[in-house]
Amino acid sequence: MRKGADVKSMRAIVIGGAGFIGCNLCTELIRKGHEVVCVDNFSLGKAENVSHLEGGSGFTLVEADAADEGALDDVFFKYHPEYVFHLAANSDIRESAGNPEIEYRNTYTTTFQILNAMRKFETKRIFFASTSAVYGDKRDEALDENTPNLSPVSYYGAAKLGSEALINAFAYMNGMSALIFRFPNVIGGHLTHGVIYDFMKRLEDEPDRLLILGDGKQTKPYIHETDLIQAIMRFMDVPAGVTVYNVGVEGATSVTSIADIICEEMGLKEVKYEYTGGESGWKGDVPRFQYCLDKIHAAGWYARFSSDEAVRMTVRGALRERNLHG
Amino acid sequence: MRKGADVKSMRAIVIGGAGFIGCNLCTELIRKGHEVVCVDNFSLGKAENVSHLEGGSGFTLVEADAADEGALDDVFFKYHPEYVFHLAANSDIRESAGNPEIEYRNTYTTTFQILNAMRKFETKRIFFASTSAVYGDKRDEALDENTPNLSPVSYYGAAKLGSEALINAFAYMNGMSALIFRFPNVIGGHLTHGVIYDFMKRLEDEPDRLLILGDGKQTKPYIHETDLIQAIMRFMDVPAGVTVYNVGVEGATSVTSIADIICEEMGLKEVKYEYTGGESGWKGDVPRFQYCLDKIHAAGWYARFSSDEAVRMTVRGALRERNLHG
Repeated sequence: MRKGADVKSMRAIVIGGAGFIGCNLCTELIRKGHEVVCVDNFSLGKAENVSHLEGGSGFTLVEADAADEGALDDVFFKYHPEYVFHLAANSDIRESAGNPEIEYRNTYTTTFQILNAMRKFETKRIFFASTSAVYGDKRDEALDENTPNLSPVSYYGAAKLGSEALINAFAYMNGMSALIFRFPNVIGGHLTHGVIYDFMKRLEDEPDRLLILGDGKQTKPYIHETDLIQAIMRFMDVPAGVTVYNVGVEGATSVTSIADIICEEMGLKEVKYEYTGGESGWKGDVPRFQYCLDKIHAAGWYARFSSDEAVRMTVRGALRERNLHG
Repeated sequence: MRKGADVKSMRAIVIGGAGFIGCNLCTELIRKGHEVVCVDNFSLGKAENVSHLEGGSGFTLVEADAADEGALDDVFFKYHPEYVFHLAANSDIRESAGNPEIEYRNTYTTTFQILNAMRKFETKRIFFASTSAVYGDKRDEALDENTPNLSPVSYYGAAKLGSEALINAFAYMNGMSALIFRFPNVIGGHLTHGVIYDFMKRLEDEPDRLLILGDGKQTKPYIHETDLIQAIMRFMDVPAGVTVYNVGVEGATSVTSIADIICEEMGLKEVKYEYTGGESGWKGDVPRFQYCLDKIHAAGWYARFSSDEAVRMTVRGALRERNLHG
């Protein structure tokens, strides 16, 4: 075990490990002294996101598709992981709104195949990246983990809720321990899509106007990936069965506020905002929601950064990246 | 429209229509004057279950697998159904406990492909056969439709809960109306498996002893298929969105009571019961549950037969069948 490791070292597999959240998790697991097998099919993830880890001891990068039973079995057979971090999913909800097959394959089937491989190879611990989208459109409730009538309005939310159901059954049937985090919007370095990514790209192309989907009043909590990774590391040793947490931050940020922060940080003045109108950015998008965070707060965890801070940090980070590489 | 039809005639597709529940539903739909396209892959269903309908006007039997996108698209293209009754699923929970692939394919994937075909061909109404297994093991609660934390303990329950999640998203995204019934154990004519089927088969082979899985104290409500079909017909015109009902009966019947009723009806005395022990018949089986039926009762529907009556009727029916054909 390398110096600085403060928990028992283990062999972890991070599926979707070259994606936006996965690459940051791989880095943190390595930093804590764990062996990491990073699995990605590079549909959204990029090898360059984990290139800083390659060649270092304890890190292996494998190209494999988690929806492919044979490929996944090969990985489990070869590496026998003790812990699975399952971050493999479609993460572009707008994209799948017109093509539900994407969620069936990349979000639900990946979960099924991962759990089935764990069953076959007797891996007992899993972390699963779920989402606020499992709740559906309950904009006037403070959503807690016991909220009834989960009724997703997006194919993405449906595939994630189906995945949670699978985790419950596999955990019970096979004595697994599962940690499920229901994420809000997650932002930070290595973004591949989403409102900040889109706005910055549009403003680089045309700095005097900005197309905004919806009426701009969609207001959601944004968590910075560093807060999220820290929460995963803190809670990953869960007892047998399934433990669910809403993971979130104080506050929320409207889409227009995001545009304002980006314009400010990019030094752009008098940008004309052009709204497509309507309260949702696209059909299946939940325009606002709020979490009750009592459960994770009672367990002693609070996010360090507010939603507005997370947005500003992300924009600044992206601008730094652009100046370095642009 | 034939005589006796009391609702607007429509073209319905019954998927899983040659199975135990489906064949009875086809009969009732035809009786009410609807056109019926019965689709089955004959994995559990049997053509003979609907042979009494063949050749009659308004009935078509098609062999197709609902998990097969191309085959399903062909059916939708050819028949353009106005209403889908989705009863296609694995129904043998004990079988899939050792092989979760069965549920992934026959229960979840069928639902996905059916909804996706409805999306493509603009079919707007669906009935879905769900199950008490979506709740998980909450044996000390009276389960109502608002019970939180649905956490299935069987792969079957997980695939059904995932299917409900899909229905929510597809209904929202495509303006569909969905009626979801969460069934308890359903019994009656044409049973293909289950405790009554198993016990009668064992006693026919060996009339002096009976192997009983578990401790025999597993106690569940059994609904007779005639009650269930009547409820489907009554509630099938639902408004846009998703409507969920627990469908059940008064009372519940223990596994040992079922054995007693079967022995009595078969005229067998002093049968030695041999229990395998344990509170569940097999891992993933929920040994007892009770429904709160306030919602469906408030809507004016009550089952005609109690659980014990349904069991006795089913046993008598099966004995009559055996005498006719045995």
